[in-house]
Amino acid sequence: MRKEEEFSEWYADVIERAALSDKRYPIKGMNVWRPYGWAIMKLVDQAMREEFDGTGHEEVNFPVLVPESEFQKEALHVKGFEGDVFWVTRGGFNELDVKLVLRPTSETAMYPMFKLWIRSHADLPLKVYQIVPVFRYETKMTRTFMRVREIHFFEAHTAHATFEDAEQQIREDLQINERLMRLLCLPYLVNRRPDWDKFPGAHYSLAADTLLPSGRALQVGTFHQYKDNFAKVYDVTYEDAKGEHKYVHQTTDGMSERILGAIVSIHGDEKGLVLPPAVAPVQAVVVPILEKGRQEEMLREAQRLFFELRERMRVKLDDRDVRPGEKYYHWEARGVPLRIELGPRDLAKGAVTVVRRDNGEKRELPRDGLPDRVRSVLELMQVSMWERAEAILRENTTTLAKVEDAKDGMNRFGWCGKEACGKAVAERTGMSLLGTPFYPEEFEGACLVCGEPTRQVAYAAKVY
Amino acid sequence: MRKEEEFSEWYADVIERAALSDKRYPIKGMNVWRPYGWAIMKLVDQAMREEFDGTGHEEVNFPVLVPESEFQKEALHVKGFEGDVFWVTRGGFNELDVKLVLRPTSETAMYPMFKLWIRSHADLPLKVYQIVPVFRYETKMTRTFMRVREIHFFEAHTAHATFEDAEQQIREDLQINERLMRLLCLPYLVNRRPDWDKFPGAHYSLAADTLLPSGRALQVGTFHQYKDNFAKVYDVTYEDAKGEHKYVHQTTDGMSERILGAIVSIHGDEKGLVLPPAVAPVQAVVVPILEKGRQEEMLREAQRLFFELRERMRVKLDDRDVRPGEKYYHWEARGVPLRIELGPRDLAKGAVTVVRRDNGEKRELPRDGLPDRVRSVLELMQVSMWERAEAILRENTTTLAKVEDAKDGMNRFGWCGKEACGKAVAERTGMSLLGTPFYPEEFEGACLVCGEPTRQVAYAAKVY
Repeated sequence: MRKEEEFSEWYADVIERAALSDKRYPIKGMNVWRPYGWAIMKLVDQAMREEFDGTGHEEVNFPVLVPESEFQKEALHVKGFEGDVFWVTRGGFNELDVKLVLRPTSETAMYPMFKLWIRSHADLPLKVYQIVPVFRYETKMTRTFMRVREIHFFEAHTAHATFEDAEQQIREDLQINERLMRLLCLPYLVNRRPDWDKFPGAHYSLAADTLLPSGRALQVGTFHQYKDNFAKVYDVTYEDAKGEHKYVHQTTDGMSERILGAIVSIHGDEKGLVLPPAVAPVQAVVVPILEKGRQEEMLREAQRLFFELRERMRVKLDDRDVRPGEKYYHWEARGVPLRIELGPRDLAKGAVTVVRRDNGEKRELPRDGLPDRVRSVLELMQVSMWERAEAILRENTTTLAKVEDAKDGMNRFGWCGKEACGKAVAERTGMSLLGTPFYPEEFEGACLVCGEPTRQVAYAAKVY
Repeated sequence: MRKEEEFSEWYADVIERAALSDKRYPIKGMNVWRPYGWAIMKLVDQAMREEFDGTGHEEVNFPVLVPESEFQKEALHVKGFEGDVFWVTRGGFNELDVKLVLRPTSETAMYPMFKLWIRSHADLPLKVYQIVPVFRYETKMTRTFMRVREIHFFEAHTAHATFEDAEQQIREDLQINERLMRLLCLPYLVNRRPDWDKFPGAHYSLAADTLLPSGRALQVGTFHQYKDNFAKVYDVTYEDAKGEHKYVHQTTDGMSERILGAIVSIHGDEKGLVLPPAVAPVQAVVVPILEKGRQEEMLREAQRLFFELRERMRVKLDDRDVRPGEKYYHWEARGVPLRIELGPRDLAKGAVTVVRRDNGEKRELPRDGLPDRVRSVLELMQVSMWERAEAILRENTTTLAKVEDAKDGMNRFGWCGKEACGKAVAERTGMSLLGTPFYPEEFEGACLVCGEPTRQVAYAAKVY
């Protein structure tokens, strides 16, 4: 674990050197996605699309603006957001009759349309998602990808006939999340947030929490069970088989560019970014070592290699006229998983030298059938990046015997479930109560605060 | 050509029946992209990405909001837009010190960053693009895809060392446009807009104008040469090889969801949408004709066909338990290019029946090697949809002998080039002067207004 201050500097530096995002845009917390950062984000988006398309969700795209009248219908929801939204009050030279909110999330935009789209049980389940910018008027310090005012956001919204169907959806969401997090090499815990910290308007909220090297937790996914709370407010009903009108039950699944912040933080090192192969815009870079007098031959061979590899992966040939060391530095900062060096000696041996970005391992691989071998190395890297990160999460999870033992990382402890005890832990440690693990954990002990015997654990950590 | 009123009704009906967009969202002119419409738009976007990535552009993503201070720097530009923008004046409960504009286009967002990114001639050309929502406070009547308040927008922005380099970029843009319009089966004219109608802040503006069945022209692409107009305002300079600081020369290339409006209008018919295969989310639908007693066999065969075709195209198997006629109606309304019917008689003959959506042509094709044959039919369709539309554009282009002859469609006439004469045509016909064709046309005649001999033609039409 690094000290927070040191972490912050390192984090900003990695992002700048990899040219992911530019925070010099003249509005605080609204950053510019540079081509390389955007390319990674698009690969993450694509992975989400595949998961959600493959589970019967359909992609839609709703307007950015929500009329005040719709926004204010759900009392708890608006209370949770009204201090955090941007307001459009003027169009051209006119004051608007109905003010418009830049969506902080899209419940209030979507559900008036759900009311129109859903008529009978045959229209259910309705499962849609969108990948869009959302906006929060953050007053706290902003940080690229982690706390920004314009957020690149993923949100799935579903409507079901019954509460149990909605529960089943949450379970599907967790399965999707597991597959995505494996792809992104982001180990996590699923916590059920305490009641006083659930999403405004939700029946309950689950969150996927990962741990950054600063020792703080970062929420990278949320899964909300709305029951019929929003349906009652937006009057979203369906006619069941018996002709009765009933309220739908709803869920949401949310993720954001924070995922990229987590990847940068968890896998990056002193040389810069380290990308999981699954979301690397360049999975391998071919660097020919140009010996005097044999440059043309080496370049031709490197090109041949490049075209072969291109059929099987995202590959780049770096044939710029600069020293190899400069190229290594450039691609290491950008987290390219594999560097494939091709020098005159390699050529003579019918081999290439492959260097892994995650652990620096250098291996000579036969030139014959190289694309298959390189693909295998990429797959190995996926697994070992996940395993390494998971070990770090485990190592930095402490089961507390007393409140004073709380430290950076994930803190696990017995909790009787009473609000007073939960809030006491948060207050005395200066941490947030992440809630109770969704997947039951074996525990036999006592509540950390009141000492009452309990089999229930909870987690607490400093958070972003 | 249809009457405008009839066209409007038909157009709205096609969009509704194909479930492309929902205009019942509670803000006028801000519509919801439904899954099928969004799927088409994503294919159009993807075609744009391929073209622009392939010509050395890089995709970026800028914030939606622009500070008033940056927005107001370019006097002509702000004058052109200030009546048309939405203003964010409040964040949470606070009045903002600096008001924010929802971008109507991104010059004023991007160029302050260009100033930071461009240092020397080695940084040029800078070629970026983004696909994002932009906003206009339209007060006129809105129409799905054609005139909306939140616009799905494509914009490429480039910076070059010299004016001639920027000119070369415009020529590249026109080549890209030609390839895209062929793919989308949208014939067009490239017109140089009259000086009084160029983009606010531009040196000159070119536009691709297509013609809709209502007899009105629709601008589907714009190509602006900015010279160093914006560079001077945003102080975007570079150091040349001699160490001198010079202003960059800039261009933009813009397109929008209007493209989808044009596809709907130009190719649609009484049955609904007709999609060019290149941007059809479903290029072929397999419909098994289920004869009593042989249902399982037919379904199995249809599945086999589906899996074979899936390797080569976007295909759907419609195995719902409804009458074939209902299925035909459903997929015709959605513009699916090919319907592949498989009945017991086809099966016995080792054949399938393929029906083209664009002209209704029905052909029996041998089952053997079907994927290749179907791909050929799709390619043929691409060409014939382009040719049919181009013939219609030609047929509806009239060369005028006198102003009074102007009618729906494209009106071509001699123009001496004087503003007074150009404006007189516009005024007396109630049309817009689209400008002079970029690709020179043979003409020997006289100015339609002043009668002065001229070899220059101009175009006028009613526009959206």
